[in-house]
Amino acid sequence: MQTFLDQVKWTADGLVPAIAQDAASGRILMMAWMNREALDLTVREGRAIYWSRSRARLWRKGETSGNVQQVQEIRLDCDADVIVLQVEQAGGIACHTGRQSCFFRVLKDGAWHTVDPVLQDPDTLYR
Amino acid sequence: MQTFLDQVKWTADGLVPAIAQDAASGRILMMAWMNREALDLTVREGRAIYWSRSRARLWRKGETSGNVQQVQEIRLDCDADVIVLQVEQAGGIACHTGRQSCFFRVLKDGAWHTVDPVLQDPDTLYR
Repeated sequence: MQTFLDQVKWTADGLVPAIAQDAASGRILMMAWMNREALDLTVREGRAIYWSRSRARLWRKGETSGNVQQVQEIRLDCDADVIVLQVEQAGGIACHTGRQSCFFRVLKDGAWHTVDPVLQDPDTLYR
Repeated sequence: MQTFLDQVKWTADGLVPAIAQDAASGRILMMAWMNREALDLTVREGRAIYWSRSRARLWRKGETSGNVQQVQEIRLDCDADVIVLQVEQAGGIACHTGRQSCFFRVLKDGAWHTVDPVLQDPDTLYR
């Protein structure tokens, strides 16, 4: 029997991009990747679990920093190859730089400008 | 001299994922891919231009349907490998199925359920 996992169009590497959006503010917090197991566990545990491509292992978001993402809703796009998570972001910080969102640089006059403040020193996030 | 294009971490295929968010509502409309030329043209023309992987050519969003995306802001994430566009979506329809957003399916009880209405018959969008 086909499950919801079978309906996702995984990349050749068995991954799907997952966009995390703050359910309260609508701010896009980050984009990461999930493999089949990560999406399955995300559903079972109700918290965002990604596949870290750099570390080649499951990444329970917040496992070190405590900044867990509780998942309120999971959506799939028309091509079945991108996922959007509505999350409640613990600590209000999604980015490893200590900012609310990973998208803290804006293009202006041909250059990327950092426009969002660091809310917490990353050294205190990962110790 | 390094330009903003050089600071983007392109994939091995020379692409970067670009998430389009409705600037007014905050709704995530779609995710597509850009190559260097697509991002450069997006900035120059002020409208979203993607790289269609299936058709292997530049894709001026709305070129057939008229549902152009005017770009109000472009952001880059901490890893420099994902882009977010704040867009004004002409026609209020981003999806080729005639829906506002490509993310019209929600996971519930282990299955994907279509929860958003078709606003315009896709046959009348692409004729």
